[in-house]
Amino acid sequence: MEVVLEKNLKEQFEQLEKGAQGNIAMAQINPTPANIEKNAKKVMKYIKKAEEIGADLVVFSELTLMAYPIMDTIDRHPVIVEENIKWLKEIAKLMGKTHAVVGFVEPRNGEKIGKRYYNSVAVLGEGKIKAIVRKSLLPTYSEFNDYRYFEPSPVVGCQPAGSLGDFGQDKIKKTDGLIEINGLKYAIVICEDGWNDKEFFANPMYELDPVAELAKQKPDVIINCSSSPTRSKKEQLKHNMFSFVAKKYNTPIVYVNQVGAIDDISFDGSSRVYNKNGELISRAKSFEEQLTIANPIKSQGQIYPLTKGLEKTLTQQKVFSLDYEPDLERTYKTIIQGIRDYYSKNSLKRAVLGLSGGLDSSVSAVLLADALGAESVFGVSMPSKITSKESNEDAKILAQNLGIKYAVAPIKEMVTTINEQLEPLFEKVEAKWNGNRYENSYVQDNVQARSRATLLWGISNEFSATIPIATSDKSELYMGYATINGDMSGGFAPIADVPKTKLFALARWLNKNRRQKNAIPDAVILKPPGAELAINPETGTYLKAEDALMPYEFLDEVIWRIENKHESYHDMIDDKFLYETKNNVTPEQKKEWLDKFYKRMSGALYKWSILPPSVIVEGRSINKNDYRQPITSGEIDYKGQEVSKIAEKLREI
Amino acid sequence: MEVVLEKNLKEQFEQLEKGAQGNIAMAQINPTPANIEKNAKKVMKYIKKAEEIGADLVVFSELTLMAYPIMDTIDRHPVIVEENIKWLKEIAKLMGKTHAVVGFVEPRNGEKIGKRYYNSVAVLGEGKIKAIVRKSLLPTYSEFNDYRYFEPSPVVGCQPAGSLGDFGQDKIKKTDGLIEINGLKYAIVICEDGWNDKEFFANPMYELDPVAELAKQKPDVIINCSSSPTRSKKEQLKHNMFSFVAKKYNTPIVYVNQVGAIDDISFDGSSRVYNKNGELISRAKSFEEQLTIANPIKSQGQIYPLTKGLEKTLTQQKVFSLDYEPDLERTYKTIIQGIRDYYSKNSLKRAVLGLSGGLDSSVSAVLLADALGAESVFGVSMPSKITSKESNEDAKILAQNLGIKYAVAPIKEMVTTINEQLEPLFEKVEAKWNGNRYENSYVQDNVQARSRATLLWGISNEFSATIPIATSDKSELYMGYATINGDMSGGFAPIADVPKTKLFALARWLNKNRRQKNAIPDAVILKPPGAELAINPETGTYLKAEDALMPYEFLDEVIWRIENKHESYHDMIDDKFLYETKNNVTPEQKKEWLDKFYKRMSGALYKWSILPPSVIVEGRSINKNDYRQPITSGEIDYKGQEVSKIAEKLREI
Repeated sequence: MEVVLEKNLKEQFEQLEKGAQGNIAMAQINPTPANIEKNAKKVMKYIKKAEEIGADLVVFSELTLMAYPIMDTIDRHPVIVEENIKWLKEIAKLMGKTHAVVGFVEPRNGEKIGKRYYNSVAVLGEGKIKAIVRKSLLPTYSEFNDYRYFEPSPVVGCQPAGSLGDFGQDKIKKTDGLIEINGLKYAIVICEDGWNDKEFFANPMYELDPVAELAKQKPDVIINCSSSPTRSKKEQLKHNMFSFVAKKYNTPIVYVNQVGAIDDISFDGSSRVYNKNGELISRAKSFEEQLTIANPIKSQGQIYPLTKGLEKTLTQQKVFSLDYEPDLERTYKTIIQGIRDYYSKNSLKRAVLGLSGGLDSSVSAVLLADALGAESVFGVSMPSKITSKESNEDAKILAQNLGIKYAVAPIKEMVTTINEQLEPLFEKVEAKWNGNRYENSYVQDNVQARSRATLLWGISNEFSATIPIATSDKSELYMGYATINGDMSGGFAPIADVPKTKLFALARWLNKNRRQKNAIPDAVILKPPGAELAINPETGTYLKAEDALMPYEFLDEVIWRIENKHESYHDMIDDKFLYETKNNVTPEQKKEWLDKFYKRMSGALYKWSILPPSVIVEGRSINKNDYRQPITSGEIDYKGQEVSKIAEKLREI
Repeated sequence: MEVVLEKNLKEQFEQLEKGAQGNIAMAQINPTPANIEKNAKKVMKYIKKAEEIGADLVVFSELTLMAYPIMDTIDRHPVIVEENIKWLKEIAKLMGKTHAVVGFVEPRNGEKIGKRYYNSVAVLGEGKIKAIVRKSLLPTYSEFNDYRYFEPSPVVGCQPAGSLGDFGQDKIKKTDGLIEINGLKYAIVICEDGWNDKEFFANPMYELDPVAELAKQKPDVIINCSSSPTRSKKEQLKHNMFSFVAKKYNTPIVYVNQVGAIDDISFDGSSRVYNKNGELISRAKSFEEQLTIANPIKSQGQIYPLTKGLEKTLTQQKVFSLDYEPDLERTYKTIIQGIRDYYSKNSLKRAVLGLSGGLDSSVSAVLLADALGAESVFGVSMPSKITSKESNEDAKILAQNLGIKYAVAPIKEMVTTINEQLEPLFEKVEAKWNGNRYENSYVQDNVQARSRATLLWGISNEFSATIPIATSDKSELYMGYATINGDMSGGFAPIADVPKTKLFALARWLNKNRRQKNAIPDAVILKPPGAELAINPETGTYLKAEDALMPYEFLDEVIWRIENKHESYHDMIDDKFLYETKNNVTPEQKKEWLDKFYKRMSGALYKWSILPPSVIVEGRSINKNDYRQPITSGEIDYKGQEVSKIAEKLREI
């Protein structure tokens, strides 16, 4: 295949000194989990390009051939590990003067003790594997589970190539750990191994700091092969940390990050180089595959912008704020990439969703149209007898604005028929169970939501590569304010980690920043959220979500405090909420809301467990790949007790 | 409160020498996750009983006050850790001469580096905390995730009480690690710390062996506080391992295990004592809370039986077998406990399920009736126009036999109305999407299954503390042969980890071994499984599941080989299946089945991700608390490729 260089790569290359030491290419690729052939071919293609421009080195992200995270797949299906070794070895044979650092899963065949694999990178060059580096620090928290399937490496830095996949402790030597390429000495670390500086972090996670160890050998450049997901405020941590470490050791750092989404986890790319003064001198695009080239020694490179506004977050304090603006483009691109990659990596093509004229489904429709193309999105308006004319109209206008497919399918008859089935059945059950019937049940709300999901799943079953979209948002999922087999059901849930107040901000941002302005009708953003599933008997108007729950501004701050500051009930009682600075909230009212919050959250744990794949957006989430709590822990006493009370209770036993 | 000793405890006590050194009580309790008060009160009650009989020591299971596993809850809600410390300290104050070993989550407040907690036990006695032991080996695989929220302890054995929760490295001393109680020296280890003997295990997981370290100090007794779940063939491992280690060090071992289920994970109790010759001298009941007493020095104690047949598994080879008999009572009790504890710990009371007259729903109904009481189970027969008269009849007979509540609710009208909605909608979609309609879709099958689920969820929404039951089995979940929002939807899935061939065996076992014989009609067991959702147009009879899939005996062996032997496609082609020894299978046929298996399994990954909480039964499962694979890994090439082919493909780039 003839190598074709992109225009921007050529331009970058022109700016570098040709043939200078330390011209390094950053290969930021979007891999598919365990599709070794696809990933390996991409690697080979990028190596060719790097050779074409005469780079000393092309660096790939962590677990390049396998994709990160690969989870328990390698344990149950070892064949994919064998395959990634085969491809690695064959790529090595084709290497010339340009070297490559490629991530892979390495079997520990010769080892009796420990897990079966290392998370490794190989340095390839001149027709062979030249060295192996293995990860020592295994992140096992939030979305990371490295220690489930990897053994921590007992040594840091480069190890002999001969140790690949089948070695004894005797073959692992404590070398100086650096590798020389075209006269420069490189220290190579994998992801977390580069994230444990004991001066930068107030609470470092591990005793060992591989960078500190390798820095003793005075490398010319530190290379970090990463797969680091995007989350709120993470750019702040990342930029400041790398800048700090480069400056501390007076050594440039090249950080290459994975891009693309693997199920719920979205990686932003934004690979970069800091020079020895800690200054950013090169940065790849965010949320795009790209090969870039830079020279960390000469401080030469091109800096692509972060998502708009994100620079502002670099110095933000850790307080709750409704000023979401600096994070909105990142949020948007994270979700777009999440949808797009879930679709492409699963060979899916089309989305169908219910359009209610409400905020959740409207924002979801915009995101889907942008991710998949308007022609691949079908919005179905499914009015019930209590759906307002305005909502129907808003849904239609939205669909027209977006140019997505649209149809109306009233559910009135379905609901009637289901009720005709349910009522006699309820009577039979009541008779045989001697009551136990709720005074006020949510059956009617739920029947509507489920009827809609039945139509959407029907379309999914009838049309190829089509899945329905679950439109629940984060605030409502926290409160269990979502119908099982209804609005929370779907093949994918794009906004499940976006709190409602941020969703409002996102809707406004979309209306302002997309090429097509104001796609979402004002009315959708202005009206108070409510599922239009029930009428408030007292007022004769629709029940609003905030009436059933609490003001969203308050609710979202509770979530934020729990997720980000691990605050307790009493902490929150004692501290003042943003909402309280703007509204008069009595202590009783605040207590009532908090009580309701904890009660509803405990009851929502089951729903979290069956949430479809979604996109992790915020710093913390309830996504089950990120957070796990036993469903049976619903009885937690979040308030705690006085010691004197505890003593008394124990004495009574 | 007056202490009342159970008759069997008194009897055990009578057999011991009163006041002898080494009378040890094993407190096998069933804790509720993070319900500290409930767990602590139970601990206090058992301590009182142990005092009453003058035991030297009462030993509890791992994380007694918190329950195991507690998962990420302690990270997000630190208040529960504070609470467990408060209760621990207050219990300590009430201790007399009898000592207790109690598990808890210990904050590492004074520590700058590492995770925030240790998995610890405290030795309590004479009004105070006497020592702390912290877990060093953190299992992080299958259902275990200790390293997500615990820091491994750098030292083994007893540490000074003063180090509790707030200590520096300076306070941790390398003591001899033993604690003396009434003249005997005890070595205490927590769960995995006692499971790493380098002679017993062919592939030990860790370098460190805490038991070997402590054995150097010549303890009189080794104590192991565990939370070890029950799974197929685990008794074999457990018994042989403890017996081996006791004999090796010529030291008795007391192993106390948690009992009860936490969500999907079932703990079997069966706490036990091996004397210094490795002989079992005491064993508590399986699947029941119990306080037992034994003397490991004098080899005195009572041995309660394992579940029937399980002894036979102690020497079984690791080959696929259809002889499930030795594991059936364990399977039964595991599921019963799983249902019962999920219900009680979630304050649930009633179950509603669809009765189709098929195997899955019939076995589920029996298990529910036994777990919750027949009066708490409601079976609904929901015939469609193609449901056979026989199936309706079988469902009714089953309900009568079991004495569960029963009603008939035909879904014909619902299905008709839904179809009347779907058809015009499909036409609109087809017109706007220019086709892409499947030639043969599963819409009709799915509409039936979803109509049924809508009725069941309706009952759940209308009646308090009632949830619908998902009746999918393991074989069909592997094949994605289950309807989203249909039969795989529910509040709990009792048989999701039971393969179909084992389910047949379990049905026969239930008919034979329950007090009430033959509750499941013969016809249910004899007829070939099929969902009665569609008619085979060629034969005019119901489509059988085995026609759509492959023979269940073959299917279940594929699952077994993948889960237990990590075999690849080619391994299975090369090896002979049990099914092949009994049936004539052409190589082409075998290849076709395997191809179908891998294709369907890849497509089923999404369904696994939304599976309701279920009971883990087998050695390995697809339960998401046990196994994780990216949904987007569906493109895996399970067959692998020839190296020459790989080289060729790379050269073409």
